[in-house]
Amino acid sequence: MNEINTEALAEKVMHWCDQLAAISSHPENISRFYLTPEHKRCNELVAQWMQDAGMETWVDAAGNLCGRYDGKNPCAKTLILASHLDSIPNAGAYDGILGVLVAIAVVEQFYQNDITLPYAIDIIGFGDEEGTRFGSTLLGSRAVAGTWNPEWWELKDRNGISLKQAFIDFGLDPDNIQSAARNPDDLLAYLEVHIEQGPVLENENLALGIVTAIAGARRFSIDIEGYAGHAGTVPMPMRKDALVGAALGVVLVENIAKEFDVVATVGKIECGPGAVNVIPGHATFTIDIRSGDDQLRDQAFAKIQHELDMICLNRNLVARWSEIHNAPAVVCADWIQALQASVLRDMNLHPYTLMSGAGHDAMAMADICDVAMYFVRCKGGVSHHPDESVTVDDVALAIDALSNTLQKLAQ
Amino acid sequence: MNEINTEALAEKVMHWCDQLAAISSHPENISRFYLTPEHKRCNELVAQWMQDAGMETWVDAAGNLCGRYDGKNPCAKTLILASHLDSIPNAGAYDGILGVLVAIAVVEQFYQNDITLPYAIDIIGFGDEEGTRFGSTLLGSRAVAGTWNPEWWELKDRNGISLKQAFIDFGLDPDNIQSAARNPDDLLAYLEVHIEQGPVLENENLALGIVTAIAGARRFSIDIEGYAGHAGTVPMPMRKDALVGAALGVVLVENIAKEFDVVATVGKIECGPGAVNVIPGHATFTIDIRSGDDQLRDQAFAKIQHELDMICLNRNLVARWSEIHNAPAVVCADWIQALQASVLRDMNLHPYTLMSGAGHDAMAMADICDVAMYFVRCKGGVSHHPDESVTVDDVALAIDALSNTLQKLAQ
Repeated sequence: MNEINTEALAEKVMHWCDQLAAISSHPENISRFYLTPEHKRCNELVAQWMQDAGMETWVDAAGNLCGRYDGKNPCAKTLILASHLDSIPNAGAYDGILGVLVAIAVVEQFYQNDITLPYAIDIIGFGDEEGTRFGSTLLGSRAVAGTWNPEWWELKDRNGISLKQAFIDFGLDPDNIQSAARNPDDLLAYLEVHIEQGPVLENENLALGIVTAIAGARRFSIDIEGYAGHAGTVPMPMRKDALVGAALGVVLVENIAKEFDVVATVGKIECGPGAVNVIPGHATFTIDIRSGDDQLRDQAFAKIQHELDMICLNRNLVARWSEIHNAPAVVCADWIQALQASVLRDMNLHPYTLMSGAGHDAMAMADICDVAMYFVRCKGGVSHHPDESVTVDDVALAIDALSNTLQKLAQ
Repeated sequence: MNEINTEALAEKVMHWCDQLAAISSHPENISRFYLTPEHKRCNELVAQWMQDAGMETWVDAAGNLCGRYDGKNPCAKTLILASHLDSIPNAGAYDGILGVLVAIAVVEQFYQNDITLPYAIDIIGFGDEEGTRFGSTLLGSRAVAGTWNPEWWELKDRNGISLKQAFIDFGLDPDNIQSAARNPDDLLAYLEVHIEQGPVLENENLALGIVTAIAGARRFSIDIEGYAGHAGTVPMPMRKDALVGAALGVVLVENIAKEFDVVATVGKIECGPGAVNVIPGHATFTIDIRSGDDQLRDQAFAKIQHELDMICLNRNLVARWSEIHNAPAVVCADWIQALQASVLRDMNLHPYTLMSGAGHDAMAMADICDVAMYFVRCKGGVSHHPDESVTVDDVALAIDALSNTLQKLAQ
């Protein structure tokens, strides 16, 4: 395999991304959701590309598009290369899609060069990762991991169509969902290429990164109760201003996140009664806190909670905490990370490691096999936005890195 | 005059307050607005009480209820005792009303004891102070001060009725509005009794206070522009979180208000896009800052603005400031304050002085004469709420203090 070949493949991947971007339920932006006509058209087009790359294709019981490239040893385990083909509303052209198409490009390269690895490669284009249509994320990879929750059948989309009905309308049999599940004993590992969706690689001037872990997020809603009053008549020392308590909380969240090297965000805030001339008697805000290390995250959160409770105590405010989400971090397999590092070093690239703050299909797949991820630099760290952008050079490096990783895995 | 008499008068005032509380456009709470049938019934009832106190009554060209108690010297100037008879929606029973009724009680006491002062006393029950119906406050006292703004005629209530039409419906002639204006040369002074609407007197364990000034408020809306991002993928040091900037602003407002001994409040805050897992790229909040000393207030605000601008500069945020309101402070006349202090000392009360953070009719009347105010303690500092409460003992002290002030003025 020579560099020209990879460069041409990278151009092809970029062109494929553009073709998929045109398959949308919205005339002016990219909006491609689970079990829709666009999902079906997307599966058909990508299946064709898989077939052109020498793969056998099928749609599994959850609507995921699957392609197989057989290995030399029919008894060897299977390596899964995957990401998702669905999008958020008004999406970029690379989130998820790029990982599926880079994997196809690698297999096409093997196919054109008559390379067969000892193990089989399954590429999966998951039908739902974003959760746009039914509000629950990772439906595609959960089905493959065998962790489908029967309660999801009653989830409804904005038109009142249940997930179950959407399965039937798509030509799938809900009763057959378990057949989408893979047997953990058959799997060698799961490897996913994905755009970073953050600014770290660009800031480090690097095309690729090795993901160490996918952060587990905890989310909280905090109500602070004070006492409303007239903005003119209550002297400062006599106030119980709930918003000042919340504002001190917002500042604490940033300071303690930096101290513990985790990420934490207050994304929503409200205060009541909410008039320019009334001291807020009530304030509510959220905290989202994430780390690749659950223990570190929990320590940071405990400190935030303790310090804010002390602030409230000193100000005669009452803080009420509700946990609204709690997901553990998923750690990428050390042995694959070591392999990835050696691949990048061989390519004269810095084997830079970083945590994924965003969720990915790898989280679901970690329930049944070792997982690993490559991140590809994206412009300005922008994702979930039409401005999402990657360079053809970085895509070529991703193709080479993935190809080399697969060949090293064969050794 | 003896104490029993005052005590009985105070009971009468409390009973009058209860009677006015029953005149409401809402069956379950106190809601009495300008130029409504309730306003008319209220004027008629209070006029009767004025007449019983020996006063001649009329409704002026702005719908204000007026009562005159002649003095000995027909050439002497007139003292105005006044407050307002309108209410906010779901109001308490004392805000405004108490000041009018305490004044009537004092005149009734003079009348029953055959006391005539050298000067005439005019009691005015202003028809609009709160601005509930037409959104513009102090309409009653502005008319009396001769500062009526012709643009107000087109103000509309929630039913689309203009202020002009409401005048006609009430039986008033809009073209006659200038006749409500008093000639400054005829006025001795303006004196208003009002509940404090704040917790200071209760905290000081005092029934009465002498108002030094009515604070001038400035109000600002501040937009902070940062950069939105994914709560998981953007490291803390790379963020431009607009809400953290706003939160630091909220904390600054409190700290600098305490430092300068003014009152300042952030009553509203919003951030966008406003999702639990998105770094806020945009935040908006308000500042209301008040002091009896405009210069001190402006210095405090300048420091808030400077420090927040520096914070934003250091965080790559942009702060945009808009001033949405600016009213100067109104200072109560020193000579009346001195008279009030000597009255309270004679009554063995501490001549406690305080600023009014809330606006009052005295602000409008200050344009045409010297003004002064007594504040009466209210329970818990609660006002603009059905729980508004004053004690009969405090009302008796207010009656005595006002009566004694009027007699001292005669000396």
